[in-house]
Amino acid sequence: MINRLCIIGVGLIGGSLALALRRSGHVKQVIGHSRDAAHLQKALELGVIDAYELDPCKAVAGADVVVLAVPLGAIATVCELIKPALDPAVVLTDVGSAKQSVVNDVARIFGHVPPRFVPGHPIAGTEKSRVEAAFSELYDGRRVILTPLADTDVQALARVREMWQSAGAIVEEMDVAHHDLVLAATSHLPHMLAFGLVDSLARMNDHDEIFRYAAGGFRDFTRIASGDPVMWRDICLANPEALLEMMARYENDLHDIKHAITAADGDSLLEIFTRAKQARDKFVK
Amino acid sequence: MINRLCIIGVGLIGGSLALALRRSGHVKQVIGHSRDAAHLQKALELGVIDAYELDPCKAVAGADVVVLAVPLGAIATVCELIKPALDPAVVLTDVGSAKQSVVNDVARIFGHVPPRFVPGHPIAGTEKSRVEAAFSELYDGRRVILTPLADTDVQALARVREMWQSAGAIVEEMDVAHHDLVLAATSHLPHMLAFGLVDSLARMNDHDEIFRYAAGGFRDFTRIASGDPVMWRDICLANPEALLEMMARYENDLHDIKHAITAADGDSLLEIFTRAKQARDKFVK
Repeated sequence: MINRLCIIGVGLIGGSLALALRRSGHVKQVIGHSRDAAHLQKALELGVIDAYELDPCKAVAGADVVVLAVPLGAIATVCELIKPALDPAVVLTDVGSAKQSVVNDVARIFGHVPPRFVPGHPIAGTEKSRVEAAFSELYDGRRVILTPLADTDVQALARVREMWQSAGAIVEEMDVAHHDLVLAATSHLPHMLAFGLVDSLARMNDHDEIFRYAAGGFRDFTRIASGDPVMWRDICLANPEALLEMMARYENDLHDIKHAITAADGDSLLEIFTRAKQARDKFVK
Repeated sequence: MINRLCIIGVGLIGGSLALALRRSGHVKQVIGHSRDAAHLQKALELGVIDAYELDPCKAVAGADVVVLAVPLGAIATVCELIKPALDPAVVLTDVGSAKQSVVNDVARIFGHVPPRFVPGHPIAGTEKSRVEAAFSELYDGRRVILTPLADTDVQALARVREMWQSAGAIVEEMDVAHHDLVLAATSHLPHMLAFGLVDSLARMNDHDEIFRYAAGGFRDFTRIASGDPVMWRDICLANPEALLEMMARYENDLHDIKHAITAADGDSLLEIFTRAKQARDKFVK
């Protein structure tokens, strides 16, 4: 149970967490903070938060759990702002899609990683990104990965775990580096490919016509290219090593396909496509 | 109105066409042919066809319209098989995703492109591929591109146009080369990217874990990697030039993204992602 939850950055992720915790009765009061008063007012009207504070220090004061739900590039700034008012007893967690960069930012601002800071990442979202898109079911049955460090406080860890479970999620743990590699493969890389494809077509002379003849497959394939550009810029800057490694691996694969097409090597193409189809069909099951 | 429609290859595309034309009352009788008797029996039981013929010459005899709905790699073989029985008055059309290769195959087998052959391509489909997946609404509001040649018979063209309109589709015309480039960009390239991604991940050591943490975005992004490997092999072999051109263009774009990530160049990343998001959002509208 959380008495006073402070959510910094009340967008799709933070807003949906608030709604999910209200739904389960796991939270008494939700305080929102962001830089944008109109945005907070909207969150209030939508019943996502109970109140808001434009002063970050006032927002975290008295909270028992503080959730940083801002883009990765804003983590350091937010930590700096709340640091003077953050009670060491408060459980602090985040929702960033890359974890090493968050740990580094937190360590730099606080001089060490506070034991009650629990790095976290809900693997959920839509291509929408504002509080208007928040909904209480976002985390139902979805995975949340927590990446505790060696000296992370076990009670703080348990508290964050309970919070996400109350929001409907399945909570798992892994180490920071492994998280960043897994996410580079399954999320960051696909986003690069989709952004790259749409941009590539948008830059063609006859782009209007090109898009006109795109079918449903293209629509699904490129949905993730409608994601928030700022969030994705930050993810790229936060997880460059794992992402570049995956991109290089992918380029090799694409090169194999290109080579087979050039050589009219139908057997190799069939082999690659069959392996991919089997893996994908298995994944969907 | 079609008295006797012969569909060669009664899968998702051919089967759905039959069902759509039955729905609109545009066809009196549908005869199916494929190499697989059990498959044709299934199509008969599902009410997709009225009868089937295992002998291709018997199948096309007496038909006023013959639709080749087989993978691109089977077009030449099928033309060879039906050639002896094909009345010059019959309207012949196909549904291939690449058009130059079909025109070449038809010209090679018949010694010329018969004036009553109308190359066609319905831009519709799902990742499923058998007659069990056929449904009458597949073409509703979807585009069908016809690529008539200089000496294509205008009545035959009108007949094929009417057929697709009766099936619910919007029919457009463009020349063969342009079709192949547009489709390389909007369909063939995205399929290569999706197959490449899934294959790339499937070949990693910890692939089960990788797929386990994939979220909804990944599921949508890779749906097209569940497409029929044989069909996609054939498309690659049928449209290599345009596809390789698009792949090269795409690789350049991906290289820009990689370069920006390596250089921690947030401005360039934001610019690319924003341009892509705008293009994609506009496309969805």
